[in-house]
Formats: sequence, C-alpha cells, structure tokens
Amino acid sequence: MSKVIAINAGSSSLKFQLFEMPSENVITKGLVERIGLNDAVFTISVNGEKVTEITDIPEHGVAVKILLKKLIDLDIIQSFDEITGIGHRVVHGGEKFNDSVLITDEILGQLEELSELAPLHNPANIVGIKAFKEILPNVPAVAVFDTAFHQSMPEKSFLYSLPYEYYEDYGIRKYGFHGTSHKYVSERAAELLGRPVEQLRLISCHLGNGASIAAIEGGKSIDTSMGFTPLAGVAMGTRSGNIDPALIPFIMEKTGKTADEVLEVLNKRSGILGVSGFSSDLRDIESAATEGNERAELALEVFAGRIHKYIGSYAARMYGVDAIIFTAGIGENSDVIRARVLQGLEFMGVYWDPALNKVRGKEAFINYPHSPVKVIVIPTNEEVMIARDVMKIAL
Amino acid sequence: MSKVIAINAGSSSLKFQLFEMPSENVITKGLVERIGLNDAVFTISVNGEKVTEITDIPEHGVAVKILLKKLIDLDIIQSFDEITGIGHRVVHGGEKFNDSVLITDEILGQLEELSELAPLHNPANIVGIKAFKEILPNVPAVAVFDTAFHQSMPEKSFLYSLPYEYYEDYGIRKYGFHGTSHKYVSERAAELLGRPVEQLRLISCHLGNGASIAAIEGGKSIDTSMGFTPLAGVAMGTRSGNIDPALIPFIMEKTGKTADEVLEVLNKRSGILGVSGFSSDLRDIESAATEGNERAELALEVFAGRIHKYIGSYAARMYGVDAIIFTAGIGENSDVIRARVLQGLEFMGVYWDPALNKVRGKEAFINYPHSPVKVIVIPTNEEVMIARDVMKIAL
Repeated sequence: MSKVIAINAGSSSLKFQLFEMPSENVITKGLVERIGLNDAVFTISVNGEKVTEITDIPEHGVAVKILLKKLIDLDIIQSFDEITGIGHRVVHGGEKFNDSVLITDEILGQLEELSELAPLHNPANIVGIKAFKEILPNVPAVAVFDTAFHQSMPEKSFLYSLPYEYYEDYGIRKYGFHGTSHKYVSERAAELLGRPVEQLRLISCHLGNGASIAAIEGGKSIDTSMGFTPLAGVAMGTRSGNIDPALIPFIMEKTGKTADEVLEVLNKRSGILGVSGFSSDLRDIESAATEGNERAELALEVFAGRIHKYIGSYAARMYGVDAIIFTAGIGENSDVIRARVLQGLEFMGVYWDPALNKVRGKEAFINYPHSPVKVIVIPTNEEVMIARDVMKIAL
Repeated sequence: MSKVIAINAGSSSLKFQLFEMPSENVITKGLVERIGLNDAVFTISVNGEKVTEITDIPEHGVAVKILLKKLIDLDIIQSFDEITGIGHRVVHGGEKFNDSVLITDEILGQLEELSELAPLHNPANIVGIKAFKEILPNVPAVAVFDTAFHQSMPEKSFLYSLPYEYYEDYGIRKYGFHGTSHKYVSERAAELLGRPVEQLRLISCHLGNGASIAAIEGGKSIDTSMGFTPLAGVAMGTRSGNIDPALIPFIMEKTGKTADEVLEVLNKRSGILGVSGFSSDLRDIESAATEGNERAELALEVFAGRIHKYIGSYAARMYGVDAIIFTAGIGENSDVIRARVLQGLEFMGVYWDPALNKVRGKEAFINYPHSPVKVIVIPTNEEVMIARDVMKIAL
C-alpha cells in the first residue's frame, strides 16, 4: 500500500490531493492560495470538513513545509516516509514527452528549456517540483504533462500552414492541452460504454474556465482545439479562442498597444467576459440571460455555438462519432450549455434527453436509449491520473 | 437590349466582361495586367480567339481608354453610347452595404472610408470606378460587394469573442468574402436541385487561390470561414487561415519581425506554399505528391483536411445539409481535393461517386443518386452576378 500525492502548482497557488494507492481512495486534499502574500490561505479537507488557515507563505517551499507538517499534525500521516511518490502536473511537455516521466536532474533541465513554450505555466510547475525535491529528496517524483496525450496527433492535425521552417526551427505547431483530463474521461467513457477504447471514436468537451475539445480515435487524441498555447480554439471565460490573425496588427494600430498587450487582452479580457461585458463566470451569465440581458444571451450563444461547430468538425474528422463527453466545471454542471451545444445534431445521430440532461456533477448518460451516438457527463479527475502514473512509473 | 460591362479592378490589373442583357450572352471579355509598368499586357477575346498586346499602360485611366477604343476598333461596339451600365466589383462594403448600390459621389466617399477595412483591395477598386467615371460620366455604375451576401449573418456568427467595444468602436467583426460567388452558386444549386433556395441548407466551398466556405440557409449566408479579412479560415495558396493568435507575438520575438511583417508572412508565404516549401499552385502540389514528395502530400492533407472539417462544422451549424457545392479554380477542377474533402462523410448522408467526381470545370452532380446529401460542381460566375445587379439597380 502506498500514499501518493498529486500536486498542481500555479504561480501563486498549490493544489494537492493525497491518495492511498492502488485503491485510489482520496485521503485528503486541499489548496494553498495567494502564495507570496501576507494573507495566504491554506485549506485542507479532513474527514469531509474543510479547515482553513490564513498565514504568511512567502514562497512555494514554505507552502510545502506547512502542508507536510499539517499532514502530521492532523494525524493523516505519522511520518514523511509514508509518502511513497509525488506526481506533478506540468503544463508543457513539448514534443519531448508523449507520456509521464520520472523526474531526474536531466529531466528537470529539459522542463526548464520547455518554459519558453509555456512561460506562464511551466516555471510555476518547476517551482513546485523543486520545493518538494528539497524537502523530500528521496521520494520519487513524476511529471505528468497536459500536452502528452495529444502527442499522438498526426502531422496533418498539428501542423500550422505557416512556413515549414517555423516548425523545424521554433517548434511552432499545435500541442493541445487538458490532455490528462481528455485521457481520463475517454478511458472512463469506454468503461461506461462497456467497449474497448480502441474501438471508439469519442469527442471530449472539457469545458471549464479554459475549454478545449478533443477528437479521440481508438484511445488516441488525433485532433484538439487548443493550439500552440491554451489561447486557441473555442471562446473561453476570458480567452478569445481563434480569431482572424490579421486582427492583431489592426488592434495594435487602433489602440496603440504592443503585440504583447494585445495578447494580454486576448487572454484576459476576451471570451465570455469580452462579449458579455461583465463576467467571465458562466453562472453569472446564465442568470443574467434568464433575466433578459441580451449581451449575456449573446455570450451564451457564442460560447455554445463554437463548441457545437467543433463537434460537427470532429465528427467529420473521425468519419463519425460513437460518444460525446462533457466534463470540467461547465461541462459537468451546466445543462443550459449542454443543451445548446447538442441542439440539432440529430442529423449525425445524436438524440439527447432534456430530462436526463438536468444532471449536475456526476456520471450519467444523457442520450435517449435509441440514440446511435451516446452523450455522457463525466466529472474529470486529473489527480487520479497523476497518482496512477506515479504508480506506473515510479513504484 | 443593353450592353453591360462588369469590371474587377486590382492594384495593377483590370478584368472586364461585356454582357448583352438580359440575355446574359458574353460579347467579349479580357484582362489588362501589369498596369503601371512599361510592358503591360492587354488581352481580349474576340470570337473565341485571344488577342494580346504589350504596351505602356501607366495607370488605370489609360487601361480603360485602351479597352474602350479596342471595343470600337474590333467592331464590338459602334459607339460608347451602347454601353448602358457598368458594374464594379468592390471587395469591402463593411456593414453599410448588404446589397449592390448605384455609385454616386456620396457612395464613392463611403467606399473610400471603407478602404481602412480593406487597404489592399478597396483603393484599387475605387481607382477603377473613377477611371470609368471620368471617361463615361453619364453611364450608371453599380458597386457589387464581396461582403454584401454575408451581411445576413447573425451576430453570434459574426462577433469575435473580443471585448465588445472593439466591435462598436472599430468595426471588428467577421465580414466574410467571395459573397458574389457564394450567392451565385447557391442560387444555381437551387435551380439544379429544382427546389426553392428558401428551403435549402447549402455548404458552398469556393476553392481558388483564396478559399472560403459558407453555410447558406434559406438562401442567406449564416456563417463563413473568412473573417475580418480574407486571411482567416482554411489554409489557402499562400495564406495561413486560422492559427493560434498567440503565435504572432511569438514569431515576432523569434524572428525580429514587426507585426506587419509577420502578417505579410501569413498572407504571402504560408498556406500551401508554406507547408510544401515550393509552390502555392495546387496543380504543382498534386503532381509532386503523385511522384512521392512528402511535403506536397502533407500540403494536400492540410488543405483538404481543414475544408473537410468546415463541412462537418457547417452541417452542425445548420442542423444538417442538403447539398455541398464546389466552385472556383480548385473546386471546379480538382477531383483529388474534392475526393479528400468528401472522404468519410457517409455518417452525415454524403455518398459520392468517384467516377462522377472526375468532372472538370462544368456543372455536374457527383453524388450517387441515392445520396441524401447532393454534391454539385458549379463553375462560379461572379461577372454575370455583377451584370444582373447593374440591370436590377441602374437600368
């Protein structure tokens, strides 16, 4: 029996989940927020109850020390030796990593090189890795990449129609993200369907504040909506998704912004927030739309409409589809978005049941029994995938 | 009986076609190329034969004078009075023009204001309008816009998920192009299908050196792949189509180029040329692919693959599709591309016949008779649409 901890380190946050393996029972989980500030917040769940502390946490190393001490103080573990493996979420694995990997000094150096491709994410992930390495130097640690699952994409899917040397010289291609989630729900869908994943054509819609769609054929990602960065694809909470690339120079000229400043607008002030003008949170938008706010209604239409079109696109990509999966915050919980996304897909064999669609946050088929294409809500679980990969690779 | 001339003026070229109306017989047509250079080329078809002259044509006004004089010299017309109307192709009509319009001084001013949205195209179109106006001041002239047909798009289709004020303040939205062509082939498809266009859901693939796909429901464009500019959408001869917008700042940083220089790469050195590395001409690519050139094969896959996905996307957009149309240079002539685009769409009711698909450059159904979705090759005819609009509006 092992205890494995799954870590997701952001620039000012650290999420953790402690598993008993191989049972996959969650022993405890929690979150450190506002790292680097005086009023950092440490939250941990103990026997189903949340314990919160506000304290100074100047950097990730301190967060890790507080976390480990808390595990002992709360009698969750008796000594650090009980932690047999650590799994770290790493956003970008480039073309080097098509699977999770045991972190060595050499690997750590390669992850640092990849920071160029994900300057907002990889450095924070690496800080998390180093903090644990310092405190638990002898516990094996595994990196689990958001991009790895999509490395199976063929060149015709991942190549941009740019000068080919941009791919060779600068690594410019589609990488795709949310891979751990897309992989989890596609495997889970196969279990629920009672069919081998190798025989299935699945469209997975990971719809959270970030959102991406993946075409998964025979258990492998063959196309996905995010691109070189997580900005591309569908509209998201604050991200624009795809736009006419000619708009960047045009917006620069009109607003006097630099290219990086325009990119900031595309990442932080666009998407549902940009269209609605008041919120990036879909729950706010749904309420406002119900009350007749036209811009909120428009934001719903734009958000759902683009996902709807991706489903048609990926069904064409795979010459048909066996099941459509909804996951992540919005995908698991919003019947409003699911209904709009699924509307009118009968022509391709999708018959869904408005009553079953009311489900929130749990596994459920929402298609009519006779529907050739199944539609499944599956809460995602990236943490358990991380723990599984630690077991597979390090233990 | 009227004689109407349809004009398409580019920055260094002027295409013309003289119609007898309302019969729509083409009396003559031709092309002036390399305007502004010493060895400009004037070509005109007389009784099916091409006559070419190389001469100095310093500017568009001179081209128009030579053209009109030639019509008299060749006995095509006896006097300028016989020309009863002129139709000018204008690329960008912005949100002002959802139909063709009689050109007055006020309208000309509005077209000049729209040059900001199409700096590469509208100024050349305007030069052509002015050249004819000076020489034939009393002949009514009509502007026919590439964007007008797409003005029926609903806001959820044309709005980018950017800050909403960018739409209000700068007119940033999807306009769409090739509208005259998409309109022509959709009306012609309805005739060939023997059904009112109002009852049809059509996907029109205009595939030339520029390429765009349109979703046409009830005779109205409700979505299209080009965007704020003709750069967006599918990969084209030299244009990238959609890419992750975050790539522009990244390429700027890597190459030291300005945003405008990157845009130039996206417009002129990308697409089929960029992927293949040697040609933007699909005929070259098809030959090379046949001979085993892998990058040419990849270019075919990328080009066809994105159109294939748009078809799925637009079928979803309209909750199904009645017919798919192929037009323009590649769409009319390349059975190789059509075959790759149509591959595997049986799941949505598309059954096409490889033997019928061999057709080149003429109207033909290429689906099996039992196919629920019809597939039609229709040579486009933007010129006749221009002549018809001149008749409708000015005569």
